[in-house]
Amino acid sequence: MPTLHVELFAGRSKEQKRELVAGLTRETCRVLGCEPGAVDIILIDVERDQWATGGTLWSEKDS
Amino acid sequence: MPTLHVELFAGRSKEQKRELVAGLTRETCRVLGCEPGAVDIILIDVERDQWATGGTLWSEKDS
Amino acid sequence: MPTLHVELFAGRSKEQKRELVAGLTRETCRVLGCEPGAVDIILIDVERDQWATGGTLWSEKDS
Amino acid sequence: MPTLHVELFAGRSKEQKRELVAGLTRETCRVLGCEPGAVDIILIDVERDQWATGGTLWSEKDS
Amino acid sequence: MPTLHVELFAGRSKEQKRELVAGLTRETCRVLGCEPGAVDIILIDVERDQWATGGTLWSEKDS
Amino acid sequence: MPTLHVELFAGRSKEQKRELVAGLTRETCRVLGCEPGAVDIILIDVERDQWATGGTLWSEKDS
Repeated sequence: MPTLHVELFAGRSKEQKRELVAGLTRETCRVLGCEPGAVDIILIDVERDQWATGGTLWSEKDS
Repeated sequence: MPTLHVELFAGRSKEQKRELVAGLTRETCRVLGCEPGAVDIILIDVERDQWATGGTLWSEKDS
Repeated sequence: MPTLHVELFAGRSKEQKRELVAGLTRETCRVLGCEPGAVDIILIDVERDQWATGGTLWSEKDS
Repeated sequence: MPTLHVELFAGRSKEQKRELVAGLTRETCRVLGCEPGAVDIILIDVERDQWATGGTLWSEKDS
Repeated sequence: MPTLHVELFAGRSKEQKRELVAGLTRETCRVLGCEPGAVDIILIDVERDQWATGGTLWSEKDS
Repeated sequence: MPTLHVELFAGRSKEQKRELVAGLTRETCRVLGCEPGAVDIILIDVERDQWATGGTLWSEKDS
């Protein structure tokens, strides 16, 4: 049942994504005591020109 | 007012999407008694390498 | 795999919710050809003082 | 802490997005009295063939 | 069409919420050139024991 | 920057929530190499009569 939506900057490698969903599932099952098959994780890649903090898009923070 | 967000595997045809939003709107209006114009549906295509169940990305379940 | 999030005004009856999830699941399976067990639906009750359209909260539209 | 997710039709210019996140952050801080650095905004571009109102995809409303 | 979801700490007054949705709608219309009636805003009150930053729930940051 | 939304059945204890946000933050930082302070997690309690799988609300699966 637990469903996780993970928003992160676009550009992560396939290995990182594989490792991330495995680790988050493991922790969720460890703490909540649920089965791995009950855990859904959706990764949402967000481009830096679509994410702003403090009123500035991250794509423009270094310029 | 009802707003539906539908996450589904990427790759569905235009016809399926057309049929899906029509059917979901019809059902929502039938049950809730609202007007079709009040129903918003946003389809969210999720790639199989962005969706994990049981700690494994769906893009890697068959490999 | 299809996951639906349905935002609707709070206050619907249990019967309506039961009927709504059954109907939406039926339509989703009919159009996408997936199994009912693969369809997750999360209903999100939104109070009228938490939903605004046109800059006005729905709880204050009739006042 | 305030986090805003803004769903809008795809196709807006970089200038509009820059102006939008600045304006929304300014208003959020003005009303809530929080610091700009506490405000996160994620822009979500939605294609017209992924957004339906009244049972019809916006990409097909003009056809 | 623009739809905004605003997650904020629970506890804000009705006046702040009224002012916030008005201001966010005004800014959205000003920048995107859309009609106020096309803008939906959903406020999501999040309790401090449901929001964590840096691995600690905000309800426990001051203890 | 990574933001996690975790939907889970309502009713978990404060200790479980504390442990869950700590573990998910640790894993996210370990895999993505980000700072804990950059990780936001929002827990979303979903009542069993608001979550359906296979067309049936979880509150009615045992009846």
